[in-house]
Amino acid sequence: MEKVSENRCFGGTQGVYRHKSAATGTDMTFAVYLPPDAEAGPVPVLWYLSGLTCTHENAMTKAGAQQWAAETGLALIFPDTSPRGDDVADDEAYDLGKGAGFYVNATEQPWAKHFKMWDYITKDLPDLVFAEFPLDRGAQGITGHSMGGHGALTLAMTLPETYRSVSAFAPIAHPSESDWGRKQLGAYLGEDRAAWAPHDATLLMREKGYPGEVLIDQGSSDQFLDLLKPEALAEAMMARRQPGAFRMQEGYDHSYFFVHSFIEDHLIWHAERLGG
Amino acid sequence: MEKVSENRCFGGTQGVYRHKSAATGTDMTFAVYLPPDAEAGPVPVLWYLSGLTCTHENAMTKAGAQQWAAETGLALIFPDTSPRGDDVADDEAYDLGKGAGFYVNATEQPWAKHFKMWDYITKDLPDLVFAEFPLDRGAQGITGHSMGGHGALTLAMTLPETYRSVSAFAPIAHPSESDWGRKQLGAYLGEDRAAWAPHDATLLMREKGYPGEVLIDQGSSDQFLDLLKPEALAEAMMARRQPGAFRMQEGYDHSYFFVHSFIEDHLIWHAERLGG
Repeated sequence: MEKVSENRCFGGTQGVYRHKSAATGTDMTFAVYLPPDAEAGPVPVLWYLSGLTCTHENAMTKAGAQQWAAETGLALIFPDTSPRGDDVADDEAYDLGKGAGFYVNATEQPWAKHFKMWDYITKDLPDLVFAEFPLDRGAQGITGHSMGGHGALTLAMTLPETYRSVSAFAPIAHPSESDWGRKQLGAYLGEDRAAWAPHDATLLMREKGYPGEVLIDQGSSDQFLDLLKPEALAEAMMARRQPGAFRMQEGYDHSYFFVHSFIEDHLIWHAERLGG
Repeated sequence: MEKVSENRCFGGTQGVYRHKSAATGTDMTFAVYLPPDAEAGPVPVLWYLSGLTCTHENAMTKAGAQQWAAETGLALIFPDTSPRGDDVADDEAYDLGKGAGFYVNATEQPWAKHFKMWDYITKDLPDLVFAEFPLDRGAQGITGHSMGGHGALTLAMTLPETYRSVSAFAPIAHPSESDWGRKQLGAYLGEDRAAWAPHDATLLMREKGYPGEVLIDQGSSDQFLDLLKPEALAEAMMARRQPGAFRMQEGYDHSYFFVHSFIEDHLIWHAERLGG
């Protein structure tokens, strides 16, 4: 693991690091915020998964999360959203290929070689960060924005023993029925929709839900509401009596100004459940 | 004035606008954050001046200021740091020309035609924003980072009746004696150092000070300490018994992670003095 940068922030350290990932077969860059409490021993961890076109950097610089991580004693991990590099397959569209990994293990060409973001987030990067930083592997939560909200929800519902708290900002809530989903899941996983189901939060919510409370925030002026389909997930959530809250925040759009406005609530939410 | 974007943020509105500036003779882009209180009538204003290479966008997205502006009822204005455009003079160096206006009115060629940032900040942009937004012209404060901290301090000491509160993050504190200053003040104002003195915070502090308290934060691990020269300004400040505080924050560097970490203190500082 190579250190790219470290900056003092709210009494803790915001670091950026690079490592060789076995899962993706590429170098990967990620960011870790360690709160002041980490000086005294392992702290709980919140994974933050970002959206289309993002890298490790967007949320690290724009979400204002470190303030509340410092206050609640949570570490934050900001992974990249796809493999990168000259030999990594890509597409001209912003929503396929680099910056658009969708948190799945691709099985189709030309994506299968490097686009193993599910394994990267659940195995490869955890093995590294739990070895390198003072983090409590038994106290992990997960959140994310847009495509990253999709990732957070699908990962948490699939691996609830790993992710003991979950929330999302404006998640892609029903990708099987959206142009943010059909195209990508088809490209990465093939046209058999059975392979898509484990990567659709609405379908997972209908099938199994999550053994804890789920917090979702969505802006009512989001320019991508037609693609996100919050109504599908909210319906599935309430139909199964899933504990938690689906909040429609009046006037907010899809930007980081929205995420920033509610990040405090989410960090406190996770800290209360992870014992931060 | 043309609206570029508006985003809901902490219950208020983060807007970006473009206008034709008489001072610079160019189009200029700036950002305004209006807190929720602005719906009920004019609110106090804090000017935030940015540093070298920045635009209106850096602090708007990275400083985390809106949260505290909403809470304290302050509006924020984020101007650009120089004129822009194909016909605007520039230099290959990052610290001269575009993105490096230094908040002066240039008198020398090729800069004199467009580089009138002092007039832009003190006359042109105020006339526009006080006409267009619910802002209290009698309740203005000013702050800034690095080159913008230099701008904030020099403007406030020169026009204390306009700027009723002042603070700075890691300001360029003594440009007459720094490579961040000699080069630019020489280029913009000529080689007569008498023209530089009104644009050197340390010299102004020695000569006149500020009729109120001054708050300055500086990181002890700032990679540009040799260029910023905080010791010169601190010495001048304490020698004249200038009320206020010069704080050396252990371990922080020059980045926005530093600004973000202390923005709450600064917004509360200004709100207390402006009646936000």
